[in-house]
Amino acid sequence: MLDGGFEGKLYAVGRGGQIWGMPIYPNIKDIPGTVDYVIVAIPKHLVLDLLDDCAAKGVKVVQLFTAGFSEARGGSELEEEMVRRARRAGIHIIGPNCIGVYCPASGMNLPGAIAKQMEKGSAAFISQSGGHAGAMIEMGFCQGIRFSKVVSFGNGCDLDSVDFLEYLALDPETEIICAYLEGVKNGTRLVETIKQVSRVKPLIIWKGGRTRAGAKAATSHTGSISSADAFWAAALRQAGAVKVGSLEELADTMLAFQQLHRWEGNRVAIITGTVGAGGGACVAGSDACLSEGLEVPFLSDETREQLEALLPPAGSISHNPVDVGMIAAFNMQGFARAMELVLADPNIDLAMIHLPLNYLVTSLSQEEFHTLLDILIHFRNTQDKPLIVIAPPFLVEAQWEAMVARFSQPRIPVYPSFERAAKAIAKVMQYWEHRTDEGTTSS
Amino acid sequence: MLDGGFEGKLYAVGRGGQIWGMPIYPNIKDIPGTVDYVIVAIPKHLVLDLLDDCAAKGVKVVQLFTAGFSEARGGSELEEEMVRRARRAGIHIIGPNCIGVYCPASGMNLPGAIAKQMEKGSAAFISQSGGHAGAMIEMGFCQGIRFSKVVSFGNGCDLDSVDFLEYLALDPETEIICAYLEGVKNGTRLVETIKQVSRVKPLIIWKGGRTRAGAKAATSHTGSISSADAFWAAALRQAGAVKVGSLEELADTMLAFQQLHRWEGNRVAIITGTVGAGGGACVAGSDACLSEGLEVPFLSDETREQLEALLPPAGSISHNPVDVGMIAAFNMQGFARAMELVLADPNIDLAMIHLPLNYLVTSLSQEEFHTLLDILIHFRNTQDKPLIVIAPPFLVEAQWEAMVARFSQPRIPVYPSFERAAKAIAKVMQYWEHRTDEGTTSS
Repeated sequence: MLDGGFEGKLYAVGRGGQIWGMPIYPNIKDIPGTVDYVIVAIPKHLVLDLLDDCAAKGVKVVQLFTAGFSEARGGSELEEEMVRRARRAGIHIIGPNCIGVYCPASGMNLPGAIAKQMEKGSAAFISQSGGHAGAMIEMGFCQGIRFSKVVSFGNGCDLDSVDFLEYLALDPETEIICAYLEGVKNGTRLVETIKQVSRVKPLIIWKGGRTRAGAKAATSHTGSISSADAFWAAALRQAGAVKVGSLEELADTMLAFQQLHRWEGNRVAIITGTVGAGGGACVAGSDACLSEGLEVPFLSDETREQLEALLPPAGSISHNPVDVGMIAAFNMQGFARAMELVLADPNIDLAMIHLPLNYLVTSLSQEEFHTLLDILIHFRNTQDKPLIVIAPPFLVEAQWEAMVARFSQPRIPVYPSFERAAKAIAKVMQYWEHRTDEGTTSS
Repeated sequence: MLDGGFEGKLYAVGRGGQIWGMPIYPNIKDIPGTVDYVIVAIPKHLVLDLLDDCAAKGVKVVQLFTAGFSEARGGSELEEEMVRRARRAGIHIIGPNCIGVYCPASGMNLPGAIAKQMEKGSAAFISQSGGHAGAMIEMGFCQGIRFSKVVSFGNGCDLDSVDFLEYLALDPETEIICAYLEGVKNGTRLVETIKQVSRVKPLIIWKGGRTRAGAKAATSHTGSISSADAFWAAALRQAGAVKVGSLEELADTMLAFQQLHRWEGNRVAIITGTVGAGGGACVAGSDACLSEGLEVPFLSDETREQLEALLPPAGSISHNPVDVGMIAAFNMQGFARAMELVLADPNIDLAMIHLPLNYLVTSLSQEEFHTLLDILIHFRNTQDKPLIVIAPPFLVEAQWEAMVARFSQPRIPVYPSFERAAKAIAKVMQYWEHRTDEGTTSS
């Protein structure tokens, strides 16, 4: 919490003494001021007494790291008793068996390596796994995702997925909601909530425990009873949520929702070969798009004629996918003109630009490299078709990070491969199509 | 070539003068010594004359960067004439429209950022795309893959995929062969070659241009006529090769073949929670394995009892997947004992160990971290069941690289996610199963 820059009052409770200049109170009731929120990391057999103390102190929320409840043999009764006492006292519980809440705006932090990542954003993530919550913040930060709130809620014995989803649907700081769920206490209510939330904000759901062995692990992890994957797939589709199957896919999809405004159409321009490595990228990009139901149509005859006049005669491809034949290496304004021509083409709805950083770094000066990025930022700011950058980070991690940082504010998402970009784009399109259809149906 | 440490004789040919202290000869025929191999980067209208000069000089192989042949409008005739002249003179052509050969053992190098990556290994890669060839070397190096030879052969007008595959099957430096192919000149012969090569070495094939748009791009890229994906999938399966669909999948599969000896059985132990983040990893690992046809069986009663006695009572899972409940944070020898118990279990054929580097870095001292890696290396060296490490690299890239470097020689492959590891492992198993079946059938 201190690393995260939390500015509220913090009190330590334990066996007495001092920590970082703060007194350690023997009991929560000994704290002089009011206490809103209690973070608990004590053995489970002490938790009921602690709850009674919290009730006496007028605490509103208790978050429990403490584990060994419904996820463990013989732990369900203790969890039920804990919920009974909390509800009687008007206390809400986050957890048990969770790492709690991350909220950069208020400096609320999670344990682990996350400490310094407190820049705030518009994506929310709720997770039954603390490990996934931490991993998502880290992975997301590397890709350019910034969060409003991340909540690890473990067993969800009191506040559960439905409560957090309802809260985030109304939260003005949150534009996209993502969830990692293992179990469902009330399936009908959850699906109904997902349906309502999906109507107002993009909702992406990763359901863990979708296989027999995964479900078994989920029961041991958070005491969850998982249901069949087929049921989930159908329910989420009908409810208008976006289904993903891994942390990577979740982050990729979140990034696309965060960085791309809503657009119409699935006709992709693929632009490659800025300073080389264009041909294979054209093929990979086309295969990736078509595999996800996106189109890579021919450019109009007019655009193609203009491109042919502009691009070098050998090593370029001027239909679509486009290989600009290394034009950025010797004629940067020619590259800008090629971008302009392709983006203005009436057959095109969005563009993926392949930037082979390894070649860019060796072929261009630092200044030319940033001019190239400026050109993309210019088109992102001056026309409506979304731009997506494809750039493998290998051996050029520092340049990759610098590029992601420059593209973050103008909202150009960067993916390491066409396959991952196409998958994310297709999911965003499916969401908006469903939402449009729903709108039409209900009007 | 100089950056790569090439130790043979290099001659420059061009308009005269000097470069890096070497004379630039006006014509290849002016070079005093014999010339084996010519790297060509001149406009295409000069290539036929150059070939005649090469013939006069007794050159054996010509590699052409030069593009604008069968991949471009009106370029097929020139390519055909070039092949006729080369064959008449006993010259072999690599390319045109390619970046050539990378061979760390002899210091043969490719352009781009690859320069310093000259450590040799056992994986070969042939590619119709120069961009993919370079990207694979870079991606591979980051993951721990080392190469015997990488060949970018572009249009493959003379030496083609079949020739390179036959060569690599007999190359003693090569243990695994990978190919990125766009087109097929003689499908029957290629499939027959793939079948024969797959019998002696693992052969992994990524076919680009598997969709309509991808095939169109492939024609413009290397003049290739792609065939339907369904045909390819069936042909590769029958021929015993491993089919992949992206550069990432190709690298992941190559890594598993390179680092894992052959083993029997698909029953995976999933070991998580060294210092935390175990629960979600258990679920994700189980889902990933089951989705790829691997099993995550219960451990024997005996192992489970011993694990339960060893692991902390809360926050641990002692069936399989296993969450060791942060034992490595306070009892490193206990972690070693848990590893020993799981690996000795008769229900287990291989193990995936989840290492959340972010938590390891903050929870353990540098020394403890390396002790943990030592424990894994010890078990890799002293028992036969393969170990695979799962570790997300985000925000801990330096530690990730250090770990991959330490695991490279003892041959423990590292993957950023369970999903990618499971996919690669399943492909390796399918290969060996097919090869075993073939052996049985033909005996």
